[in-house]
Amino acid sequence: MTSISRFQKDELDGISKKEGIGREKLARQIECGRIVILNNSNRNIEPLAVGEGTRVKVNANIGMSPDVADEGLEIEKARTAVRFGADSIMDLSIGGDTWQLLKRILKLNVPVGTVPIYQAALDSSRKSGSILDMDEDQIFQTIERHARAGVDFMTIHSGITKRTLEVVDSSKRVMGIVSRGGALLAKWMRNSEKENPLYKEFDYLIELIKDYNVALSLGELVEVCRDKGVGAIVEGPGHVPINEIEANVLLQKRLCKGAPFYVLGPIVTDISAGYDHISAAIGGAIAAMHGADFLCYVTPSEHLALPDFNDVRDGVMASRIAAHAADIARGIGVSEDLRCSQARASLDWEAMFNNLLDSSRANDVRRERHPRDPRTCTMCGDFCSINQ
Amino acid sequence: MTSISRFQKDELDGISKKEGIGREKLARQIECGRIVILNNSNRNIEPLAVGEGTRVKVNANIGMSPDVADEGLEIEKARTAVRFGADSIMDLSIGGDTWQLLKRILKLNVPVGTVPIYQAALDSSRKSGSILDMDEDQIFQTIERHARAGVDFMTIHSGITKRTLEVVDSSKRVMGIVSRGGALLAKWMRNSEKENPLYKEFDYLIELIKDYNVALSLGELVEVCRDKGVGAIVEGPGHVPINEIEANVLLQKRLCKGAPFYVLGPIVTDISAGYDHISAAIGGAIAAMHGADFLCYVTPSEHLALPDFNDVRDGVMASRIAAHAADIARGIGVSEDLRCSQARASLDWEAMFNNLLDSSRANDVRRERHPRDPRTCTMCGDFCSINQ
Repeated sequence: MTSISRFQKDELDGISKKEGIGREKLARQIECGRIVILNNSNRNIEPLAVGEGTRVKVNANIGMSPDVADEGLEIEKARTAVRFGADSIMDLSIGGDTWQLLKRILKLNVPVGTVPIYQAALDSSRKSGSILDMDEDQIFQTIERHARAGVDFMTIHSGITKRTLEVVDSSKRVMGIVSRGGALLAKWMRNSEKENPLYKEFDYLIELIKDYNVALSLGELVEVCRDKGVGAIVEGPGHVPINEIEANVLLQKRLCKGAPFYVLGPIVTDISAGYDHISAAIGGAIAAMHGADFLCYVTPSEHLALPDFNDVRDGVMASRIAAHAADIARGIGVSEDLRCSQARASLDWEAMFNNLLDSSRANDVRRERHPRDPRTCTMCGDFCSINQ
Repeated sequence: MTSISRFQKDELDGISKKEGIGREKLARQIECGRIVILNNSNRNIEPLAVGEGTRVKVNANIGMSPDVADEGLEIEKARTAVRFGADSIMDLSIGGDTWQLLKRILKLNVPVGTVPIYQAALDSSRKSGSILDMDEDQIFQTIERHARAGVDFMTIHSGITKRTLEVVDSSKRVMGIVSRGGALLAKWMRNSEKENPLYKEFDYLIELIKDYNVALSLGELVEVCRDKGVGAIVEGPGHVPINEIEANVLLQKRLCKGAPFYVLGPIVTDISAGYDHISAAIGGAIAAMHGADFLCYVTPSEHLALPDFNDVRDGVMASRIAAHAADIARGIGVSEDLRCSQARASLDWEAMFNNLLDSSRANDVRRERHPRDPRTCTMCGDFCSINQ
């Protein structure tokens, strides 16, 4: 069982108040692993609750790539994401001075996630020219180093096993493994003919990180985590047709004993590149309505290029709309919509804008296209349905 | 029953082939009103099928307003919408030379819809300074004139009756009537103390238009239309929380005897102004998955201003993604996704882009952010999961 004792009383009170969940119930949900608190014990941020009964959360990915390794740019993208309401940031760097960037990202006041296998692969690739030379110790050392540095949650590909690879190889799946970390590990496993150390040595991994209160995002092994007091979040798939999302979420929640469910989108069609944030908002809203707790944003540049500022803003906003639409369905946050509608009904534009998910964009549109009659807008003018 | 005889054999064959529905079944669905064909007998366009078993269609609204009455701008917006895949255009003009614009819009090769009450109210307002002086004959004459000019479908607010207004007045609904045409009619009815002529004289209205093969978009009276051989589409609400969409669609389809269901969005939260196209894409996808047949686009400027070109493009694309996501769920159009994924799996960027809903945006992103290794993109570079 996750020990509740590691949390200060005032931390739990703060979460209880913010999420509108009674303190007793919150403590119970944390104990049994249905809610996970993101907050590395080496950091001093506001803890973030993810899971059943809490507001649906939104994560934004940033990170340098081999082609675009600009630390300042990624810091600004992370700040943009936080400014527009992202609840957490994942640093997925695979290029540039990754440690330096991670240190700077950890100065933001939101939980930070990483995929340590990227760092291990990058180190190996820089040392010997090949990710295939990555050794097991190096993987575990990277995980511990991230935990010590303050990373609040990590994606661990423990689900890629020799058996998984056999299944993938014999399946007719069009794209094989599409996960970047998963594909790296698979390549390494095939070359070394070894079992995945993140699976084989999972107990050792837990020992390494448990004192830091790092949550793991994984595909199974939830019960091992719970036994050792380590928060476990389960990552779901990134591409699902909309008629299969509900079953997918229900199954995952059932098999993983109610652990918080983190979905990457999911994207609901493969032909929306350039607009995949919209495809992901559709999938994310449906997933969250049926129980997903944590939405990883997708930007308009997904499948095309590393995102820029505008992409980050649009990606965060699309996921926030999805999260909020699902919150309403789950009975949370309706009062914000009510306040906004009341302001709209009385043509009080300022109050309306103050209640929007992003008032700055609405202000920009209205400033650029100002109506003659300031009570109305340029769409309807005298024919405004409210102003009759 | 809708007479099938008005359609040429080759027209039905064309629709049958395009929609992948056998000719017999198609004829039967048209006969019983579950599929409506948009194609005014005075126009020479490719007929468009809307309804059960057909691909989900997307409509884009354009139109001049009192504040922005620029005919050329609206024509260009309509062309933009068609270029990016809108299946039909509604001209909702309430300002400028509306007849002139309508004539130009009718030269496009897609079905065109209008809301004739706007024209009637505008004429009255220009003549006497008040929409309250609009008389009943004028409303019917406008409808007939639109039909004669070639309008393929019309929104008719026959559902606003004295009884409806009593219900609205006694309800605690925050915003009252939010439909622009509905609010106009309500004001007129309250002032004149008359019943809505579009309800009271519905049989007369049908007589006026039936020879033109105009489809009506309305809230009830479906059976009257069917008896007279007039296509009836039912318009649904514009704002629905995501957990109520399924019930709403099923109820509407049941009450309206399977008539094609046209939804305006629906928007799934009231606090997403500036991004309402995303809110509408979420609602539209869920509605269409459960049986809605026709999605009216919503642009990022909804609730803020008259849309510009970029808004039109973004609105059309968001609705097309929603429509396509629902088509996949309904077993239509999956082959496009498969071709795109196969191209992606072989890193064939050109073939991938050729199968996208909008290849031009993807091309722009890739041109601006070109990777060092042309097989990959700037997101992953050497770490590309496909290129391992």
